[in-house]
Amino acid sequence: MAEAKAGELMEKIVSLCKRRGFIFQSSEIYGGLNGFWDYGPLGTDLKRNVKEYWWNKMTRLRDDVVGLDATIIMHPRIWKASGHVDTFSDPMVDCKKCKARFRADQMHEIPCPQKPSKMASECDGEKTEARPFNLMFETVVGPIRSEENVAYLRPETAQAIFAQFKNVLETSRQKVPFGVAQMGKAFRNEVTPRNFTFRSREFEQMELEFFIKPDEAVEAICGRVAVPAGPGHPGEPQPDWGWQMWHQYWVEERIRFYEEIGLPRATLEEYWQKPEELAHYARATVDLLFKFPFGTQELEGIAARSDFDLSQHQRFCGKPMTVFDEELKAAWPKLAPAKQDELRERYYQARLKYLTKAGEPAEKAAQLARQDAEGLTKGYYVPHVIEPSAGVDRMALALLCHAYSEDQAPDEKGKLETRVVLRFHPRIAPIKVAVFPLLKNKPELVKKAKEVRDLLRPHLSVFYDEAGAIGRRYRRQDEAGTPFGVTIDFDTLGEKGPELQDTVTLRERDSMKQERVKIADLVAILTEKIR
Amino acid sequence: MAEAKAGELMEKIVSLCKRRGFIFQSSEIYGGLNGFWDYGPLGTDLKRNVKEYWWNKMTRLRDDVVGLDATIIMHPRIWKASGHVDTFSDPMVDCKKCKARFRADQMHEIPCPQKPSKMASECDGEKTEARPFNLMFETVVGPIRSEENVAYLRPETAQAIFAQFKNVLETSRQKVPFGVAQMGKAFRNEVTPRNFTFRSREFEQMELEFFIKPDEAVEAICGRVAVPAGPGHPGEPQPDWGWQMWHQYWVEERIRFYEEIGLPRATLEEYWQKPEELAHYARATVDLLFKFPFGTQELEGIAARSDFDLSQHQRFCGKPMTVFDEELKAAWPKLAPAKQDELRERYYQARLKYLTKAGEPAEKAAQLARQDAEGLTKGYYVPHVIEPSAGVDRMALALLCHAYSEDQAPDEKGKLETRVVLRFHPRIAPIKVAVFPLLKNKPELVKKAKEVRDLLRPHLSVFYDEAGAIGRRYRRQDEAGTPFGVTIDFDTLGEKGPELQDTVTLRERDSMKQERVKIADLVAILTEKIR
Repeated sequence: MAEAKAGELMEKIVSLCKRRGFIFQSSEIYGGLNGFWDYGPLGTDLKRNVKEYWWNKMTRLRDDVVGLDATIIMHPRIWKASGHVDTFSDPMVDCKKCKARFRADQMHEIPCPQKPSKMASECDGEKTEARPFNLMFETVVGPIRSEENVAYLRPETAQAIFAQFKNVLETSRQKVPFGVAQMGKAFRNEVTPRNFTFRSREFEQMELEFFIKPDEAVEAICGRVAVPAGPGHPGEPQPDWGWQMWHQYWVEERIRFYEEIGLPRATLEEYWQKPEELAHYARATVDLLFKFPFGTQELEGIAARSDFDLSQHQRFCGKPMTVFDEELKAAWPKLAPAKQDELRERYYQARLKYLTKAGEPAEKAAQLARQDAEGLTKGYYVPHVIEPSAGVDRMALALLCHAYSEDQAPDEKGKLETRVVLRFHPRIAPIKVAVFPLLKNKPELVKKAKEVRDLLRPHLSVFYDEAGAIGRRYRRQDEAGTPFGVTIDFDTLGEKGPELQDTVTLRERDSMKQERVKIADLVAILTEKIR
Repeated sequence: MAEAKAGELMEKIVSLCKRRGFIFQSSEIYGGLNGFWDYGPLGTDLKRNVKEYWWNKMTRLRDDVVGLDATIIMHPRIWKASGHVDTFSDPMVDCKKCKARFRADQMHEIPCPQKPSKMASECDGEKTEARPFNLMFETVVGPIRSEENVAYLRPETAQAIFAQFKNVLETSRQKVPFGVAQMGKAFRNEVTPRNFTFRSREFEQMELEFFIKPDEAVEAICGRVAVPAGPGHPGEPQPDWGWQMWHQYWVEERIRFYEEIGLPRATLEEYWQKPEELAHYARATVDLLFKFPFGTQELEGIAARSDFDLSQHQRFCGKPMTVFDEELKAAWPKLAPAKQDELRERYYQARLKYLTKAGEPAEKAAQLARQDAEGLTKGYYVPHVIEPSAGVDRMALALLCHAYSEDQAPDEKGKLETRVVLRFHPRIAPIKVAVFPLLKNKPELVKKAKEVRDLLRPHLSVFYDEAGAIGRRYRRQDEAGTPFGVTIDFDTLGEKGPELQDTVTLRERDSMKQERVKIADLVAILTEKIR
């Protein structure tokens, strides 16, 4: 019952997205392309607003994060180093009878193409052993089709940040701790794309890699490593923060972000991955989930990834990914010898563990780990990283799902009818204000309304609409999620006396309340409500 | 001589781009990937500012253009319809001796890989016939590698606009004339990427498709079709504009855009393609060229493409791409029968020409053209289109080349030294203002400077820098193209008396002039200078 209702709600949202130009199926006129979605005029601006807000909050308004904009096609060695070439795959099974291919873990829920009454796992076609199917899209760079020219469309934006870490460090005047942020397209050749735009083959990510000192360096410099005192935001970053504090900081910063774009904390769920779920290099991962109509699903993951990523690239490209830390170098000789030994040993063990897991032979691993530990005593280390990684399309879909609502409102004749409203936060609403002349066929009203449009437009996104009854125009904007409407009527022209001259009706979308305000005050009132 | 100087200048620009984090080679730590470039922190924001300005000017500040954000991988039929599958190729020649592959038209300028003293065209290796090599990157969608699952990375963003034309029209409440704008990545597997980021394999486009009525419809509605009275901007769009006026309008609008981001008209060249250079469907194409150090090259093309694109998709997808024009329907019956015949015949001939060129058999072409001409009399037509198509990377490179300059300025000891300055227009400069405490080791100066930083940051992009001599900090910002610098000194703290308290030095990058302004006035002064 609840499931049927959720399905119905999702259908309404999908239908609204198409009807109002938020989201279209890609290549629809050619029958569509499974797992690919285009954003129409309203969707494009919704996504732009989300990205703009993320970029400003994560980079422009901070001293300690800079941006990067790397290519989608990168050197294939990057995906060897990251592990994607070897392990980013789903197990696939072929049916020898009907030649169809299935994900091994989905065979019990996908019908047999020849006998749809049976599931693929139950039909009598003989199946092959499960074989890994890599989810990266492959292509060939250059005019010669050969193994060595194979490249991949990036399955995530993060790796470019690691690959360009040294270039950014050397040119940006940043010191650890600092972050590099990137937004952009990524591609995964999902076997079964589904849930509208939630799991698609081409999608957009917003990722931050925030580089921090290893705890051993923090302890050497500050004499201690702060650990979280309890839940909640730990406040302004401090020099004695280790990975746990930074991780908690970014989890809380990201939750604040969602609150600021109109997804209250109560709509989110924090899922701390269990030790057995974590990748071997990860210290902790928190998934932020949203309650979609089709289930509670991940919007963003905030992972403490240790120094795994930079270390991998160091091994694969043969160039050091270490930084030199002036403070660490200065602090080390002042430590008591026992403390030096303790920190050196802890760092040695951590590096040894990584190198062993990475497949280095025992002797070489020990030798490299000893070198790394020696490096630490001179101020060198491979930075650790905290990675908040969000999906733009998922975020846009969560905003659409959360904003969708229906209520009752009177039509032109006063009869109650169902009103569909997208209750977007004004910050991310595609259109901020609609401007309406009360009547289309009164040139004075139209002229004045266009003046108001031109007055507002430099400051915010305006939609001008003169066609149809005013009530219907309000409804259209309610459906588009436009938070404010300004109507120019005969009072505006001074026909009811000079007090109301050059005032307009300002209507608020959710409450449908209207107030009379001066045109001269509009820019200030609206920019205040929207920022 | 001039060429050597231009080469030297280009080297300096490339070196500055790397040194200051504008542009890095993609995947540099793995030896790089030919034809792929990453944008570092400054480059990312330069590109963002250019795109933001384009988007605002082309869509948000207009009533008649809406946005689209479509996928990079689209249905392969789109590229059949557009002609890219069949004709988007370079002729390639293989050397049977050394197995190298060359572009046939470049063999006389590329050395033989085995005998570099000779050009490929002169060496004694036997060559194959030239064969077409398609420039689209290919990939496979879904788990099965088969011919029918082959798809391409889009070689241009424009086609998605045509493919989604009907969806946008039906959801956006626009009527012809109106436009759809899109920005995004595109890919071309160039055989010889070159000239830094100018010709790369992965690049970003900003394209507008502006849909207009065919001239026959304009004439039916307005009784005439306006034609350009002479060169220059034709002013506000009028109902009687045909394709020539609209084309001239967009050429001039685009030139204004370049002027507004700091590329004066004198740095551009307008190249009108000659009739024999035009594609068969194109009415006119103007290329806007920029004088790069490596030659005068195209930044943008503004093409009048007739109704070719939508007509192609109509034929390939089997669904009508026509619009219904209320005004045309109302106007038609009021025309004199002779005028009706004339317009119908002209439209018939234009459609017949298109259909014949498209390869329809004579009889079918005539039949379809007759149907189209009948449609016109009832208010239906396939819109024509004007396409201003710009390259983001080329634009960024032109801005860097134009901004690069060297002059003489005194160093700390008053000795003249060469100063490198990027004279960006403030609108597109990555950083708008740098904030400096005069000295790092005076807590009052640092505290005040951070207050000023926090005051400015919500309004514009700020870089805070406290390290090094103030002169060196100025130079660093000159190289980054930051138009303004604000220095907090002892006067700011009131140490020279109350008149100068809470005032700062505001330095202008190009003139290096400094003036004393009140902190309270800074936001207003700077936002005025930058907008």
